[in-house]
Amino acid sequence: MTSTGMIEIETRVRMAETDLMQVAHHANYFRWFEMARVEYLRARGLVLKDLIDQGILFPIKEVHCDYRESARYDDVLIIRAKLVVFSKVKIAFTYEILRKIDGVLLAVGETTNVFTDLSGKVTRLPNHIVQQLGA
Amino acid sequence: MTSTGMIEIETRVRMAETDLMQVAHHANYFRWFEMARVEYLRARGLVLKDLIDQGILFPIKEVHCDYRESARYDDVLIIRAKLVVFSKVKIAFTYEILRKIDGVLLAVGETTNVFTDLSGKVTRLPNHIVQQLGA
Amino acid sequence: MTSTGMIEIETRVRMAETDLMQVAHHANYFRWFEMARVEYLRARGLVLKDLIDQGILFPIKEVHCDYRESARYDDVLIIRAKLVVFSKVKIAFTYEILRKIDGVLLAVGETTNVFTDLSGKVTRLPNHIVQQLGA
Amino acid sequence: MTSTGMIEIETRVRMAETDLMQVAHHANYFRWFEMARVEYLRARGLVLKDLIDQGILFPIKEVHCDYRESARYDDVLIIRAKLVVFSKVKIAFTYEILRKIDGVLLAVGETTNVFTDLSGKVTRLPNHIVQQLGA
Repeated sequence: MTSTGMIEIETRVRMAETDLMQVAHHANYFRWFEMARVEYLRARGLVLKDLIDQGILFPIKEVHCDYRESARYDDVLIIRAKLVVFSKVKIAFTYEILRKIDGVLLAVGETTNVFTDLSGKVTRLPNHIVQQLGA
Repeated sequence: MTSTGMIEIETRVRMAETDLMQVAHHANYFRWFEMARVEYLRARGLVLKDLIDQGILFPIKEVHCDYRESARYDDVLIIRAKLVVFSKVKIAFTYEILRKIDGVLLAVGETTNVFTDLSGKVTRLPNHIVQQLGA
Repeated sequence: MTSTGMIEIETRVRMAETDLMQVAHHANYFRWFEMARVEYLRARGLVLKDLIDQGILFPIKEVHCDYRESARYDDVLIIRAKLVVFSKVKIAFTYEILRKIDGVLLAVGETTNVFTDLSGKVTRLPNHIVQQLGA
Repeated sequence: MTSTGMIEIETRVRMAETDLMQVAHHANYFRWFEMARVEYLRARGLVLKDLIDQGILFPIKEVHCDYRESARYDDVLIIRAKLVVFSKVKIAFTYEILRKIDGVLLAVGETTNVFTDLSGKVTRLPNHIVQQLGA
């Protein structure tokens, strides 16, 4: 897969995702990034549940987010995930979150996952999965 | 164990637990109930992680909560859990949540868990665990 | 509005909504109920954000949920909300959550919200909003 | 305040904070960082609720976290927050999260908050608050 592989999903900010400062709590952006990442992989035939069933976990190694404007209750968000690194030992994405109504960029972020076995030891992704993701 | 078995814990309302209505989001009360339930069992020598390691899960079957006053950001809460039903197939607690600073009752609730095996099939607790909980 | 007023929405169980017992954590069902309730009201022209801007809050007074089968990671859920009580001082819904792939009923629940002013004092909904909801 | 200003708090990983990969979901680390940040400020006499009451918000501008080992259900965590930047327009902290039982470092992170008025416009902290934090 080239580095231009991208997906775009939408979600609406839930009441339970806001806080008393009237905006979406910042931790939720990582849940939204994850939703996009999951759909990116699903679109390439990789269902994370199946990976877990094969004894492969993919814990987060590193995350970063730069918040530009606040997401607010009931906003419809566009979440874009782009694959930027993919190897047998890790996978990294960059993200953009936009407010759908006016296209304003709310946040940009990055995440890196590594692959481990069920005990948490770093492992290498089997070849057939690497090929599935086209890397 | 008699029905007077009770535990009391404290927690402080986190920013991420509030919503834009300036109060703690109602779903969080069930997380707080759970914290008290976990400590109740720990105080009797039952660590839920160990139960899981033995292949026993304890999914929630039923919950109820009556909200009297709102818990707010930064409030210190007192959470009381009382065991009301305990058998080989289920365990039920009632709860009270009070605001520590003035003792006002914020909510009362109930939860029932059942015991299942890892596949989700209802199972019976082993005798040694039943005895541990003194029922 | 008659008591048959109903809405149906869909959502997918997120990784962050699961717990180590491999199922969706029970507190999340109330977030899903809320999503359906919000869409029910939106479909009748009532956007909760506008209500807040008019100084009307709608805290939860009581909730109940009976869990039949576990919602699991990546399951697509159908959430049905039905208005069962609507007056100037409160609004109550019942809910069903089904697993989309096979239609199995996972949970049934109920919630009651009351209307308050910004200080938390119970208030009566203005007539124009009552009429909007057709009660 | 010198840049060595530090606070240390403890929390226990809740069931609702874990996910099906058997570890704490990564988004929760930012909630834990926030808990430590709040207590850091409280220890210096600054209660965030009072700041909000004065019309000052403090949205997150940027966050980063590097995950070394997984926090797991029921682990007692030590969370250390250290003030590294403090000016009239922003405040930044670094964090460490350790597993209490063996002192293993689980994660390191950083956050930056800016100060805004209620409309979200960047603002400058009043002098008396700047002095309170001793910068």
